[in-house]
Amino acid sequence: MTREDCQRLDAADRLAPLRAKFDLPPGVIYMDGNSLGPLPRAVKERVDHVIAHEWREGLIRSWNAARWIELPQRVGAAIAPIIGAAAHEVVAADSTSVNLFKVLSAALALQPGRTAILSEEDNFPTDLYIAEGLIAQLGAMHRLRLVGADAIAGAIGADTAVLMLTHVNYRTGAMHDMAALTRLAHEHGALVVWDLSHSAGAVPVDLHAADADFAVGCGYKFLNGGPGAPAYLYVAKRHQERFSQPLSGWLGHAAPFAFEGRYRPGAGVSRYICGTPAVLAMSALEEAVLLMREAEMRAVRAKSVALADLFIRLIEERCSGQGLRLVSPRDAAKRGSQVSIAHVEGYALMQALIARGVIGDFRPPDIARFGITPLYQRYVDMWDAVDILRDVLAGRAWDRPEFKRRAAVV
Amino acid sequence: MTREDCQRLDAADRLAPLRAKFDLPPGVIYMDGNSLGPLPRAVKERVDHVIAHEWREGLIRSWNAARWIELPQRVGAAIAPIIGAAAHEVVAADSTSVNLFKVLSAALALQPGRTAILSEEDNFPTDLYIAEGLIAQLGAMHRLRLVGADAIAGAIGADTAVLMLTHVNYRTGAMHDMAALTRLAHEHGALVVWDLSHSAGAVPVDLHAADADFAVGCGYKFLNGGPGAPAYLYVAKRHQERFSQPLSGWLGHAAPFAFEGRYRPGAGVSRYICGTPAVLAMSALEEAVLLMREAEMRAVRAKSVALADLFIRLIEERCSGQGLRLVSPRDAAKRGSQVSIAHVEGYALMQALIARGVIGDFRPPDIARFGITPLYQRYVDMWDAVDILRDVLAGRAWDRPEFKRRAAVV
Repeated sequence: MTREDCQRLDAADRLAPLRAKFDLPPGVIYMDGNSLGPLPRAVKERVDHVIAHEWREGLIRSWNAARWIELPQRVGAAIAPIIGAAAHEVVAADSTSVNLFKVLSAALALQPGRTAILSEEDNFPTDLYIAEGLIAQLGAMHRLRLVGADAIAGAIGADTAVLMLTHVNYRTGAMHDMAALTRLAHEHGALVVWDLSHSAGAVPVDLHAADADFAVGCGYKFLNGGPGAPAYLYVAKRHQERFSQPLSGWLGHAAPFAFEGRYRPGAGVSRYICGTPAVLAMSALEEAVLLMREAEMRAVRAKSVALADLFIRLIEERCSGQGLRLVSPRDAAKRGSQVSIAHVEGYALMQALIARGVIGDFRPPDIARFGITPLYQRYVDMWDAVDILRDVLAGRAWDRPEFKRRAAVV
Repeated sequence: MTREDCQRLDAADRLAPLRAKFDLPPGVIYMDGNSLGPLPRAVKERVDHVIAHEWREGLIRSWNAARWIELPQRVGAAIAPIIGAAAHEVVAADSTSVNLFKVLSAALALQPGRTAILSEEDNFPTDLYIAEGLIAQLGAMHRLRLVGADAIAGAIGADTAVLMLTHVNYRTGAMHDMAALTRLAHEHGALVVWDLSHSAGAVPVDLHAADADFAVGCGYKFLNGGPGAPAYLYVAKRHQERFSQPLSGWLGHAAPFAFEGRYRPGAGVSRYICGTPAVLAMSALEEAVLLMREAEMRAVRAKSVALADLFIRLIEERCSGQGLRLVSPRDAAKRGSQVSIAHVEGYALMQALIARGVIGDFRPPDIARFGITPLYQRYVDMWDAVDILRDVLAGRAWDRPEFKRRAAVV
């Protein structure tokens, strides 16, 4: 394998033209799109339009004229095909954490008599924290049971109210078999909540094929909606009107602008909306999602696997003997769209790479994470990133004190 | 009183220069800043900078380099002086509805044995809906007791866990005596949650002087933070560490980037943060709040009263016999910063005004609302608005069918 081979792969890549739709800064190989997607050019244009025309000129009238009021449902409908859902099963709103509180409240309410939320001990912390907060709120009648990834299937039982999992592990990139685990949970009478934050947009997700009950996901990672973009949630049609979720804000009401004194939950998934939609952020997310839909998800996945396999192979060929250890599954079928590499000074190693323009991130205790994002990454980026990694390792750049000083956000 | 008199008042107005800091569209008299503030020029510049530099160039690094991670506390601290709070008692986050759920959860948890949430039957609906949702979540051990505004003081009793009120009524503009009602509630052992959405930024609010327990408020009305801007919440220092609120997302954790498996609430009010901050929207709000702080709140209030008194007087002088009825208190001391006028065809009347460039809004059953916003309104705007109102009434423009067709958002 040579750099020229990578260039040839890029020349033949049918997704390659999408790269020009992103405004990528020069001198950077961006491998952190699994944490914060880069700026799509259309998002900048859309936000400009929303501010200069819809807000500035339209003012309050834009709730009707620019259809701001429909944003939660419209952005939800745009996300739906990316996650194998129907348009009327998804809304964009709030943060992933807040949305998880809503759907987990629903899932527990639909399972009277069952007391356990079963999850993975290495699940993304906010998911576990929200479960803790909800359990405390409900009077500690429930418990959060955490097991290792390999023990999940065996831990589902008659007391399992909800199986709550993140589809792709944020540290390792390991991917659960959504269909198999959902089927198993259903066989035991449990409901399933999937967190798609680290998978949707990079990995084919088919909630309908898996017969999933609930899901939540993040707008600012693979969906490229911008820093702190609104999140989304999915409620299977069969569950939507069985429960009125506790964050019953006015925009989830059946008739918000009738200003009625009593809450009447809206039809279908709209009752999962709470407060006024964040128009600037929702508009940005809508544009980013529409861009993502220009790519066919099977093609995105095929390129993701090819890029990650290439990245792993090049590291093994060119950086051997430097104390690196592959943390992500080698088998692409069990891996999301990131490559995690452990190194004894993983934090400093990542800082040294960032100083050289290869931007990934670090996750405790020792993991350098590299996001694989086929919409804008090239095969040659994998070559160049490994080239710089090799250089950093050979020169022991990670051993410099300035790279060991921890910042607030790692 | 003549138009020239109004022009003389504008010439002498020390707040007048602030109008140029807003990008107001031509041909519009904007009287809906109590519902959606107009665009501050600095907000456009700030959002441009966040997108083009912090997001586009800085990418993930901006969480540290641009201090995105501090936004909830920093914007909260900027809002604090506007509401008479200390910097470490306020965070900006989520929506008003979500924040109300957090602080109401806290207030109820701190009042074991007391069962009533006491509120006003004409409170803004989302406040009542959130209370309903929380009560249902907690197992219906609590109840929501609603009384008319005049009956509140007499209804506070030994069973009152929380008095939950909106400082200024969204329909009528009537303002509660925050200090007196808080004192009375405390005398009965009740805690108080104030919703400042319709007052903060236009009316002096002093939570410390009132010894308030909790408060929430909206970023997109008088604070001009943009459509669907993040909201804020206040927790008095004495209550902050007595409870861990249920929306315990990762950014309220004591060490979010340690990715610990168990939730440990952050110090002070930071535990009221939940998910990842909406960076674009938070940055917009920060800029808008900093602009508001250029004005001294006593001067803002004085001009608000003068504008509203003028508006009412001109309507009475120039639109008599046209079926209008003043709904807002005539006594400025009991009024927030809006003037509400009833008309049998209030909806159509407002549409006719909007068609002529006077933008207010409608609230059921028959109220035309006019927001008073001293940062950018002029005395001459009051004259011109009443001039157009007189014309619309004289020509019975409100009687046209096109003005009676209701839009989705009223």
